[in-house]
Amino acid sequence: MEIVFALYDDMTALDLVGPYQVLAMLPDARVSLAATTPGRKRTDSGMAIEAEVALRDLTAPDIVVVPGTGRPQSPLADASLLEWLRAVHGGTTWTASVCTGSLVLGAAGLLEGRRATSHWLALEALRGFGAEPVGDRVVFDGRIVTAAGVSSGIDMALALVGRIAGAETAQVIQLVIEYDPQPPFDAGAPGKATPQVVARATQVLQAAL
Amino acid sequence: MEIVFALYDDMTALDLVGPYQVLAMLPDARVSLAATTPGRKRTDSGMAIEAEVALRDLTAPDIVVVPGTGRPQSPLADASLLEWLRAVHGGTTWTASVCTGSLVLGAAGLLEGRRATSHWLALEALRGFGAEPVGDRVVFDGRIVTAAGVSSGIDMALALVGRIAGAETAQVIQLVIEYDPQPPFDAGAPGKATPQVVARATQVLQAAL
Repeated sequence: MEIVFALYDDMTALDLVGPYQVLAMLPDARVSLAATTPGRKRTDSGMAIEAEVALRDLTAPDIVVVPGTGRPQSPLADASLLEWLRAVHGGTTWTASVCTGSLVLGAAGLLEGRRATSHWLALEALRGFGAEPVGDRVVFDGRIVTAAGVSSGIDMALALVGRIAGAETAQVIQLVIEYDPQPPFDAGAPGKATPQVVARATQVLQAAL
Repeated sequence: MEIVFALYDDMTALDLVGPYQVLAMLPDARVSLAATTPGRKRTDSGMAIEAEVALRDLTAPDIVVVPGTGRPQSPLADASLLEWLRAVHGGTTWTASVCTGSLVLGAAGLLEGRRATSHWLALEALRGFGAEPVGDRVVFDGRIVTAAGVSSGIDMALALVGRIAGAETAQVIQLVIEYDPQPPFDAGAPGKATPQVVARATQVLQAAL
């Protein structure tokens, strides 16, 4: 099973690494970290992760995962990335995104008429691509799977493993990564946070654009 | 506030990137990804992450975070890493680990007589370093903070931000990364998984050693 993560400068590190850590454990997974131009990709917090292969050399992935970014203008302007997504999507078993990665799927024309999610602050922007925004953490629509903001890629990947390899294998991976989350606060969604926290988070996100 | 992540070959990607994504958002954070020898570090799932600076050039970090690995023999044999940890720990505000990173803190002599946690399969190994194993997800003992397996680094980092910058700032970061976990299965701890899942997870982990 060939799994391709589409990297680019400005991606958010955890958007990539959350699902990567899970999907790399799929039985028979062959994982590629790929980009339009291979080499070091600088994430939006500064960390550099290596894209080891060119997207154009991967023509028949089974699973594609597009991470998001705090600066979506960067991947949205990458015509080669969008063209590659359009080209390979027809043959994938699953095409997936995390966070604003769904805007990239949208810009590639893959979300027309589909239900999809994204980071809470980007959810409405999905309409611009003909998608129907859904405020769930993970949204399946046909072969397309979209996840909400940043950390949601872990939940998405485990759900995907459940569909591909069965619930028990997903549980094995969950236990290996000891994914028994116990957040010390309960402010992970706009409806759970105080107005002041929502305002500050919005400010942080808009300042990063 | 100077935050140093201690990288090494064979580290687990999510052990590093979970707390990195959170702590990099601390107000006034200066984050360094450092290693005994700078350069690309290959994680235990294959992904390469760049260590941009040498540990020896960072002599006064405020926070140190040591990620874990499925192959702890690698960092445990890195005498320079252990020596650096011993040298800087006296001056840190917080010295932290994720997963088997606590074994590395232990090998550096920092856990003598202290309560600490680790990946569930490595918990008992803490006794070899004079520590008292505690099966909690995040354990604070003085200036030392240890987290359980892999994904627990996110919870640990949010708890740390709460202590450093207050609950509201931690909640802002939680909302920015939309950390509202909804695992599709409930098998993230040995006590929650079936015996068959525990057996398979143990096999996966032991095969990686």
